[in-house]
Amino acid sequence: MAKRAATDALRMKLTMTAHASTKPAIAMAAHNPLAAKLAAEAGGFDAIWASGFELSAANAVPDASIISPDLHLQNTRSMGEVQDLPIIADLDTGFGNAINLAYAVKKYESAGVAAIVIEDKTFPKDSSLRPGGRQLLVPVEEFQGKVAAAKAMCSMLVIARTEAFIAGLGQDEALERGLAYEKAGADAILIHSKQSTPDEILSFCRAWTGKVPLVVVPTSYPQLSFSDIARLTDGKVGLLICGNHAIRAAVAGMRRAFRKIVNDGGIAGVEEEVASVSEIFELQGDSDMRELERKYLR
Amino acid sequence: MAKRAATDALRMKLTMTAHASTKPAIAMAAHNPLAAKLAAEAGGFDAIWASGFELSAANAVPDASIISPDLHLQNTRSMGEVQDLPIIADLDTGFGNAINLAYAVKKYESAGVAAIVIEDKTFPKDSSLRPGGRQLLVPVEEFQGKVAAAKAMCSMLVIARTEAFIAGLGQDEALERGLAYEKAGADAILIHSKQSTPDEILSFCRAWTGKVPLVVVPTSYPQLSFSDIARLTDGKVGLLICGNHAIRAAVAGMRRAFRKIVNDGGIAGVEEEVASVSEIFELQGDSDMRELERKYLR
Amino acid sequence: MAKRAATDALRMKLTMTAHASTKPAIAMAAHNPLAAKLAAEAGGFDAIWASGFELSAANAVPDASIISPDLHLQNTRSMGEVQDLPIIADLDTGFGNAINLAYAVKKYESAGVAAIVIEDKTFPKDSSLRPGGRQLLVPVEEFQGKVAAAKAMCSMLVIARTEAFIAGLGQDEALERGLAYEKAGADAILIHSKQSTPDEILSFCRAWTGKVPLVVVPTSYPQLSFSDIARLTDGKVGLLICGNHAIRAAVAGMRRAFRKIVNDGGIAGVEEEVASVSEIFELQGDSDMRELERKYLR
Amino acid sequence: MAKRAATDALRMKLTMTAHASTKPAIAMAAHNPLAAKLAAEAGGFDAIWASGFELSAANAVPDASIISPDLHLQNTRSMGEVQDLPIIADLDTGFGNAINLAYAVKKYESAGVAAIVIEDKTFPKDSSLRPGGRQLLVPVEEFQGKVAAAKAMCSMLVIARTEAFIAGLGQDEALERGLAYEKAGADAILIHSKQSTPDEILSFCRAWTGKVPLVVVPTSYPQLSFSDIARLTDGKVGLLICGNHAIRAAVAGMRRAFRKIVNDGGIAGVEEEVASVSEIFELQGDSDMRELERKYLR
Repeated sequence: MAKRAATDALRMKLTMTAHASTKPAIAMAAHNPLAAKLAAEAGGFDAIWASGFELSAANAVPDASIISPDLHLQNTRSMGEVQDLPIIADLDTGFGNAINLAYAVKKYESAGVAAIVIEDKTFPKDSSLRPGGRQLLVPVEEFQGKVAAAKAMCSMLVIARTEAFIAGLGQDEALERGLAYEKAGADAILIHSKQSTPDEILSFCRAWTGKVPLVVVPTSYPQLSFSDIARLTDGKVGLLICGNHAIRAAVAGMRRAFRKIVNDGGIAGVEEEVASVSEIFELQGDSDMRELERKYLR
Repeated sequence: MAKRAATDALRMKLTMTAHASTKPAIAMAAHNPLAAKLAAEAGGFDAIWASGFELSAANAVPDASIISPDLHLQNTRSMGEVQDLPIIADLDTGFGNAINLAYAVKKYESAGVAAIVIEDKTFPKDSSLRPGGRQLLVPVEEFQGKVAAAKAMCSMLVIARTEAFIAGLGQDEALERGLAYEKAGADAILIHSKQSTPDEILSFCRAWTGKVPLVVVPTSYPQLSFSDIARLTDGKVGLLICGNHAIRAAVAGMRRAFRKIVNDGGIAGVEEEVASVSEIFELQGDSDMRELERKYLR
Repeated sequence: MAKRAATDALRMKLTMTAHASTKPAIAMAAHNPLAAKLAAEAGGFDAIWASGFELSAANAVPDASIISPDLHLQNTRSMGEVQDLPIIADLDTGFGNAINLAYAVKKYESAGVAAIVIEDKTFPKDSSLRPGGRQLLVPVEEFQGKVAAAKAMCSMLVIARTEAFIAGLGQDEALERGLAYEKAGADAILIHSKQSTPDEILSFCRAWTGKVPLVVVPTSYPQLSFSDIARLTDGKVGLLICGNHAIRAAVAGMRRAFRKIVNDGGIAGVEEEVASVSEIFELQGDSDMRELERKYLR
Repeated sequence: MAKRAATDALRMKLTMTAHASTKPAIAMAAHNPLAAKLAAEAGGFDAIWASGFELSAANAVPDASIISPDLHLQNTRSMGEVQDLPIIADLDTGFGNAINLAYAVKKYESAGVAAIVIEDKTFPKDSSLRPGGRQLLVPVEEFQGKVAAAKAMCSMLVIARTEAFIAGLGQDEALERGLAYEKAGADAILIHSKQSTPDEILSFCRAWTGKVPLVVVPTSYPQLSFSDIARLTDGKVGLLICGNHAIRAAVAGMRRAFRKIVNDGGIAGVEEEVASVSEIFELQGDSDMRELERKYLR
């Protein structure tokens, strides 16, 4: 019920005609079901971003098509089992060509996913923000085939991500690709940039003439607030993804605690700064289990 | 190489005759390979605790034999692939009886695990520290069979954990069980307590007459330093496990960042307090991948 | 569409008042998606039995709660992705107590399963037909809790399997348990026997006074035809499960071919007796992939 | 012990200078651990071929990089746990580029695999024998990088498979690629053909001037016996892979039994032609479990 309503709200944001006063939907990245649950409880996010970068990082391997697709699918499914926000799944390049994608989307739909993002780089992908990364795009027509295949095989929202800026191909190529992907059926266009200022993205958004909303991931240009982005893009941005803040926060938290424990030669000093065991029990759904115990353990 | 040396060191701590001046080995809990890598880089830990509680929490389900054994095995194996500390795997009750354990230990050994912990509760287990939890012990002879089976089927260190205090059975029962498990072949005895002071544990350690070292998990009685514990137990504690501090630190880190992002209506404000994207790249092994790219991508 | 209709048909057979002229639904066991697809194409089966015995055998380990629940869940899900018959999932004892079962049933329902079978033995189970096997039943009230939990947590059909005969407890115990499980909400009662004649089962069926239909697995008493069973039980049997014939047929087929290849010192001699490569392509859904290629590869 | 000896034997066959009197090693395909165990018990095979085609077929999906790499890895590992023949793992194109392969080979080595085969087609692969399949090769230098990466990252035997004939590029290209891959470090060259006669393959073998042995998969040209192949190729073939006979035999066995059960309206008629339940118990390792029960269940 709660999930249905949240999914409808996301769908509406991504399919209605946007205007400047519209605040975009905000998605928070997650690398495991617990992170997804924490994002949901935070109260200000509209969706979970089942991020390939975060899951790769959680496994301490590069975000370069190294983790197995099954691990991402399973983790994404589990995220949906423990909280009610809709899930936007990061499918990278789609695990191969349009055929591989066609087989994959049915699995993601069965896993309860609301929307997918596919990007127009070649397989295997490399992380967009990695200095010196390998960034090659597939031909426009090839990626249109992927978009069309995804749309035909499922009823999830399909967000087409162009890496034209990441590959250094400029705004004209980015706009052309965005329009081509909209034509192929994409429900929204994700435009990515690794500039440390939002100029490139804002320019793109202003020049965008498509009918579908835009999606941005402001990792490298964090300076604009969510409402700044809405205002400066005339409401063309329907969704903003906080792409990696769960894992970055988790790393900072763990590093701080580990360092302190090592320095202190004991665990007493971190008690105040880490979550209590009771809080963890609560996040594990202890009260639901108590209810099950009371009703069914005899 | 590095892993071999660290494993030998752990084995030595757990098999030599201990004395009061000996600092116990310290293991830090991990719920994913990244947490394991962060613990290894912290520089003060001797082993990774592949914790069932942490992995359950990462999946937002209770620590009550709910996650699939395969998930734990796979996660544990992956921890060993990305860092060099030896891994102590939390096998809970052993996934059933001595037969199920016999099949499981071979898989854990193949996964590169150095030591396992099995506990003398009934399957399905419940979290030891959970208020009102279900805490029943199997008969001593039955658990001796498990210890013997594990020892016979693998060459990993086998640590037998008695939950006699957790089940409210008192020190005599705890000591009797510890000695019985040593007799069955256990390489160390883990004695667990949920008292908020170390009195129960210290009393047990002082009364311990067995030849194998003890293992403690001071979650509920954090006040003693690692060297306090060594001193107050006459060096009988060979291993001290920080049982859940990785997940508790990660939760605190994520909650803080999520709250701030929601309150700020933007991501700029958390930049200083979360790890940078570059730091994540480094943890993902980016430099190793660069090396592979240089050598093998043509 | 096809699956929906087949599932409705199964549901009807298992929930309507049966009469002597009613032919029971017939389920065929499968150990992988291919076996499920072959059963579906055979044209005479109404459902797929996602058998724990078969999956254990496919992994060459005993059917004694040794394979991981995740493997069974994943395999069962995949069976539903490639053919249209409804799936009846063999959940053995429910992977622990009523709590573990409660968590598991939600996953099986999401995996598209139509019905589950749970049995009243203790965890870990042992194979019912194994000579000298370990066959202990949980108390009636405990198993009623499991049935009630399963019914409350999902809308799948819940079939309660009593192993009273397998445990040597006789017909009175079997009938009492059947009625108790019906009272707890079971949609059907599976009555199992390892007698080499059907006398025990037929006697039970005739004595059965419950309102829900019965389910039988005539592995050890194959002599009666499906219509014999319908007639001799006054139509009380709503479902008959061919419990292990896929894996037994596969083993016979492989043994024959391997032996011949070894004896012949070549593969020419088995060409006639094994399926052709073209047949395998067809079973892999080659024509569907061709269609995808034509539409989406550009 | 047994496995070590068998692996050494395979290694010797693949690394020694061959001569005409040498019978090649024979590998039988398997799609699950049971098939691997049956191949081992047959007594005439030297290795197990952990085939991607077979595993795809067992999952009823095309052999076109659709199943998840994790599924293949897990299945391959399990094959090694239940029988003693060395395993040759079919890594298709290596799951991406040389980087992806470099990460993968370490996992396969840890899984106990003795040798891997990688092929010089583009990712995603298509089945070599499929009519009208997509068959494109990567540049020679690119594939040399893959071979070199695999050799550098593991100590398994690395068999380089050229699909030059499959892609219609002729013998000169096939020979050139074979020599280039040997130069890059390959321990053997697999030469594949879809001709219905062995002429193409025999011609290649006779023209082969490399020092490493050849590997053939005579699926489409079954007419030559194993010793014919040894004789006609002057002993240059070190390994012959029966690429898909386990799944083809299993399909034939299941189809026959299912059809008979449907036609008979009962299971009695197939009792004679399928394996008995006792035989399945034996294949599941029942006697080993009995031993464990006797020793450790108390």
